[in-house]
Amino acid sequence: MKTNPTPLGPKADKETVRRHNLSLVLRAVHDEGEATRAGVAARVGLTRAAVSSLVEQLLESGFVTESGKTFSGQAGRPGTMLKVARAGVAGVGVEVNVDYVSVCVVDLAGTDRVRLTEHLDHRGAEPAGVLARAARIADRALESAERQELRPVGVTLALPGLLARGTVRQAPNLGWSEVPADALFAGALSARLPVRSENEANLAALAELWFGGAGAVRTFLYLTGEIGVGGALVLGGELLRGAHGFAGEIGHAVVDPQGPPCRCGARGCLEQYAGQGALLRAAGLDEDSGATGVAELERRAAAGEAPAVAALEAAGAVLGRVLATAVNLFDPEAVVLGGIYRGLAPWLAPAAGAELAARGVSGLWTPEAGRLRASSSAGDAARGAAALVVRDVLADPVAYA
Amino acid sequence: MKTNPTPLGPKADKETVRRHNLSLVLRAVHDEGEATRAGVAARVGLTRAAVSSLVEQLLESGFVTESGKTFSGQAGRPGTMLKVARAGVAGVGVEVNVDYVSVCVVDLAGTDRVRLTEHLDHRGAEPAGVLARAARIADRALESAERQELRPVGVTLALPGLLARGTVRQAPNLGWSEVPADALFAGALSARLPVRSENEANLAALAELWFGGAGAVRTFLYLTGEIGVGGALVLGGELLRGAHGFAGEIGHAVVDPQGPPCRCGARGCLEQYAGQGALLRAAGLDEDSGATGVAELERRAAAGEAPAVAALEAAGAVLGRVLATAVNLFDPEAVVLGGIYRGLAPWLAPAAGAELAARGVSGLWTPEAGRLRASSSAGDAARGAAALVVRDVLADPVAYA
Repeated sequence: MKTNPTPLGPKADKETVRRHNLSLVLRAVHDEGEATRAGVAARVGLTRAAVSSLVEQLLESGFVTESGKTFSGQAGRPGTMLKVARAGVAGVGVEVNVDYVSVCVVDLAGTDRVRLTEHLDHRGAEPAGVLARAARIADRALESAERQELRPVGVTLALPGLLARGTVRQAPNLGWSEVPADALFAGALSARLPVRSENEANLAALAELWFGGAGAVRTFLYLTGEIGVGGALVLGGELLRGAHGFAGEIGHAVVDPQGPPCRCGARGCLEQYAGQGALLRAAGLDEDSGATGVAELERRAAAGEAPAVAALEAAGAVLGRVLATAVNLFDPEAVVLGGIYRGLAPWLAPAAGAELAARGVSGLWTPEAGRLRASSSAGDAARGAAALVVRDVLADPVAYA
Repeated sequence: MKTNPTPLGPKADKETVRRHNLSLVLRAVHDEGEATRAGVAARVGLTRAAVSSLVEQLLESGFVTESGKTFSGQAGRPGTMLKVARAGVAGVGVEVNVDYVSVCVVDLAGTDRVRLTEHLDHRGAEPAGVLARAARIADRALESAERQELRPVGVTLALPGLLARGTVRQAPNLGWSEVPADALFAGALSARLPVRSENEANLAALAELWFGGAGAVRTFLYLTGEIGVGGALVLGGELLRGAHGFAGEIGHAVVDPQGPPCRCGARGCLEQYAGQGALLRAAGLDEDSGATGVAELERRAAAGEAPAVAALEAAGAVLGRVLATAVNLFDPEAVVLGGIYRGLAPWLAPAAGAELAARGVSGLWTPEAGRLRASSSAGDAARGAAALVVRDVLADPVAYA
């Protein structure tokens, strides 16, 4: 039996095509930074007339603005330049880590427009309390966004640990287990906004991909040093999530099966050698001194103080051996060191690089190849989280008009 | 300026569509095992008439055969069953490993039609000599294939090590470096057939995916025990090759940085604890005794002899720790143990599984979950290699008509 198309069929199809083309045009303007209608038409392969009509709708909805004239020597009406709007839709990223909360609001261009970071110690605190406190910080960031005429359309929570369907299944360093983070945060936030969550290392890796100096590098391993050690795999410009969304957990790679106990329940995990606490302790600093301690470690290393340098070199060698295993398994183009490793890279990277060179079976990991690098300062988990919201807007602007 | 389509344009397009549809229909018959024209039409979404015309061409070219009648209660001409042909196009796989050569010819259904395995020791032998010897074995397999009216259309070499563009860049256990394997093998083979090469663990993993008991499992880590330890990652039914095609090299994961020297130049790699030689030595057997030694190890373990059991349990624990690191990083649904590990799994797997359970951060790796399993006996690298050729035929039968 054949069924006839319902009367709505063709109309719905036409609307679907227009919706898709609106996204195409908006993304073209977004990716170019600024573009003429003719430039957009050439890029997306639609006619000038079709692009003009789509641009009109994007202008009306406030996704795009016109500015200035092109310096065209040709006769006729000069083309105006299109840009994505600085006001209007925005994305919010809220990173809740073990010893800080960082909130970021980005506009449609992905530009960091509001940033609010507070250093707090969440270890042993109730998850609901931690998330409520994060919501208060987000509330203040949203006030700043409003003053800038931004209209946030969603929040991404960046959390350390294993997440599934809005719930933190395991976050050993926060001491969380089966915490419905999305619901708790959404309930505590003053504004009614859709909330979702994503692993913080994954988001930091996306931020590196979108805003960092990765350039043409589309396949890399991202490592982020915090209280824990997070990791993410990016394969051809997309996150590699694995079968259950838990991929990238490098912090519990085995360094020494008889090593110190880890919060995960096992012994001798990478975190116990290269996590923030371990680094500080090895350098003779208070392992719970947080960002202040890390700054002091960096200062001491820069001053050439032997205990600091030795601690970082030893941790770098351990990191390098774990990275060699990961690199042999995943074959990335590069390894990017983020979080506290970014500032500490001058002392960590040489030792790590020597291990990678000795143990990377492909022979591609010589120090000269420059494949081991510090992350860009432009990208962190909070910005990646905020930009993830904006990506949804770019994919279907009509849904956010 | 607009250009008019060239006169060939539309015709070429029509041919492209027909070529594509021939592949669709052939793959439908292949995947179903046997199917009626109506069944194929329903599956691929083409009309009965279009499918009949395509089937006619596939019958004429010998890709498909008709057999029997369906037991249709309906009036009219009974449908006949279609199957892929048992005679005609075939693929050849040639695994050249450190201590054996195995040649496999499969027909279009992927069925193993010829198998020839010789145990040899290639260590220290000249690559050209080894490949010429493998070509002699392949020649004999091709004679058997001819007697079965099979028409081989290509050869895939399965080689241990890092390959790029037909060249073995590094195969430490063979002692090969920069060996143009495809050209050497093609030159030594009596028949003129296209030859390409692929990492043997990758091919064994594909064989597991296509012929093994993986069932619905599409994302897994495959580990193969040989003289070396090979690995492959399958992500959503596709090989994860990494940025340069070198992914999956788990054999050089660091177990102990001060451990025994490895052929790769580093120390304490997994191979030195769980490779064939290390297993045999630890059990008190001659580490160079090859397949005979492995069979003896298996016999002793089955008889409950303490040194054999202890050697396997110790190696299993080491394997488990490396697997835990890999599993935390890649988040597969399952880990499959192939090569010599398949037969030794009863003694390796419990120890490996205990480490995985203790160190898998997702909590998904309890022994009850059954995620660590021995490979199927149906799939090995040689069969995967042969089937890779057949996949090309299925993707574009016209090219092989």
